[in-house]
Amino acid sequence: MPSWVVSESVLPQPVIRRASVHDLPRVVDLIRGGAAPGTEPEDDPGPPLAQAYLDAFAAIDADPNTDLMVAECDGHVEGTFQFTCIPGIGHRGGRVAQVESVHVAAAWRGRGIGEAMMRWAMDEARSRGCFRLQLTSNKARADAHRFYRRLGFTASHEGFKILL
Amino acid sequence: MPSWVVSESVLPQPVIRRASVHDLPRVVDLIRGGAAPGTEPEDDPGPPLAQAYLDAFAAIDADPNTDLMVAECDGHVEGTFQFTCIPGIGHRGGRVAQVESVHVAAAWRGRGIGEAMMRWAMDEARSRGCFRLQLTSNKARADAHRFYRRLGFTASHEGFKILL
Repeated sequence: MPSWVVSESVLPQPVIRRASVHDLPRVVDLIRGGAAPGTEPEDDPGPPLAQAYLDAFAAIDADPNTDLMVAECDGHVEGTFQFTCIPGIGHRGGRVAQVESVHVAAAWRGRGIGEAMMRWAMDEARSRGCFRLQLTSNKARADAHRFYRRLGFTASHEGFKILL
Repeated sequence: MPSWVVSESVLPQPVIRRASVHDLPRVVDLIRGGAAPGTEPEDDPGPPLAQAYLDAFAAIDADPNTDLMVAECDGHVEGTFQFTCIPGIGHRGGRVAQVESVHVAAAWRGRGIGEAMMRWAMDEARSRGCFRLQLTSNKARADAHRFYRRLGFTASHEGFKILL
């Protein structure tokens, strides 16, 4: 195959890494861009970045069971998610891993970033001894549901939420 | 009303408290009794109680964001759940509270224990500054879904899980 034929396999593999505080405005920007359909984004990456975000980053940083992650492509952060490991009694003291707030930049969707992030989450969950990985996805996000099913997730549960 | 008329209002109010290690066999027993329909319970309260449960209790005890809770009625533990507070970046650094592993002894269902446990969780979530309380419930549990809806929860999300 001539070297100028660009195949899918040469799409840059995203680097999945823990976020630093310098990534925080971009993470907030990605979260804002991924607000659920029909909802008004309430997040604001600034500048200036609200102190509440810095406080939240510090709380995550101090929590050994939670990591804020980013996916970097060609040196730019194009995806984010949060990984949490929850200890439990059931399943013979089994730990559960959970991802929250999964977002990929609009221009980069469908290019493997989400899959790379969830593969990282599954590997990390296994390495921490978790027997299950779980997440919830808004019922309006049919594309996301196909994506999670393709990775092997089952929509076995209803996700109940209440605002306080 | 004569004093011998027993109304619903005199049902004993359960005491919701943090579990001690002495409650652990009963908690495992409740979890075993609440295994999802069609599944084989894998938990075993002993005696002897497997070391894995004691290790899990120690992990929960060491995690300031997670509490193992019990509901006590007339001096006996008849309900259990786990409460976790998860820091986050979205919603302007909003924290999310989550309950897992909600179980009530079969003989005590429909008598207000579940409601008392979830009211405690809502109050605790508010006092920790959480903007949302969330949980997932197996799609086979129609009774539980009615219960959560009655308390004000909305089944807005699909709950995806994958075993590792």
